[in-house]
Amino acid sequence: MDIEKKNTFVGLVIVNTGDGKGKTTSAIGQAIRAAGNGFKVCFIQFIKGKWLTGEAKLLRGLDLIEFHTMGTGFTWLSEDKIEIIAKGREAWKLAEQKVMSGSYDLVVLDELTYLISYQIIPEDSLLELIRKKPAAVHLVITGRGASSGLIDAADLVTEMKQIKHPYKEGIKAQKGIEF
Amino acid sequence: MDIEKKNTFVGLVIVNTGDGKGKTTSAIGQAIRAAGNGFKVCFIQFIKGKWLTGEAKLLRGLDLIEFHTMGTGFTWLSEDKIEIIAKGREAWKLAEQKVMSGSYDLVVLDELTYLISYQIIPEDSLLELIRKKPAAVHLVITGRGASSGLIDAADLVTEMKQIKHPYKEGIKAQKGIEF
Repeated sequence: MDIEKKNTFVGLVIVNTGDGKGKTTSAIGQAIRAAGNGFKVCFIQFIKGKWLTGEAKLLRGLDLIEFHTMGTGFTWLSEDKIEIIAKGREAWKLAEQKVMSGSYDLVVLDELTYLISYQIIPEDSLLELIRKKPAAVHLVITGRGASSGLIDAADLVTEMKQIKHPYKEGIKAQKGIEF
Repeated sequence: MDIEKKNTFVGLVIVNTGDGKGKTTSAIGQAIRAAGNGFKVCFIQFIKGKWLTGEAKLLRGLDLIEFHTMGTGFTWLSEDKIEIIAKGREAWKLAEQKVMSGSYDLVVLDELTYLISYQIIPEDSLLELIRKKPAAVHLVITGRGASSGLIDAADLVTEMKQIKHPYKEGIKAQKGIEF
């Protein structure tokens, strides 16, 4: 981080990673906090199951946050790998465009790390976006297994670590809590 | 956890702890997700600085989430310890009442752990509330240094671990991001 960045308004690069809960929900909270302070927020969910998440239902109804999901019915369990790759790259293009537009104070790239893990986009594309983005834009990037290049480029990195999880005790995922 | 709890609708006790970011923002996201699925949500912030947080500004405007803060201008930096204790206990009473009312599907007790760390309420009061609460109510409890009794009683515990933080590089807390 150079001196100039320290002394001017800084758009932070925030990463929520780790195997525990709270990566996406924390990004939602960050988006709500920012919007509550009058920030313009764009939230892009790269991964989406068959259901419409609770946050999607609510946030889509708010004027304050622009909300995008990758595509209807998309899931990593899908067997159509070509479709996954195409949709992943399409979502990434949208993300680049939103970040570079300068129209937002905060852009959330939810579960973006999987696109890198699954080699749908190269890590370099993300690092390049971080370098060239408008200085004031904050980025929140979530997902397991954040790559080392991303961690180096980030300002704030939090690992969500699972200490105790109810699935291990035989409780199923619950609507309203898990999705 | 007993068999009966596994086979009926279970209100989970979720704890976000650790020294990293994302404990409160994750609780906000959890509240948004739940509300988006039609859950009735009550959010109680036990600690509040001099400013009105971005999330408070936004969530108060939503009908879906009932939002409470402990008291205007309250801060742990305050020198009036007697006022802190009185306000802490008052907030705890409100929390007990909201949880026990059965009127909510999810109650968030944001930064509650500090009340135990600072011995404003005994840990036993919290453990008793967890035991006697209506079965279906989900609780989300946040704050650093969750006590061992709370961790034992919880179903899902996540530690937010700081990997990298911009304050260490000389960047100040920023409105919209930190509060």
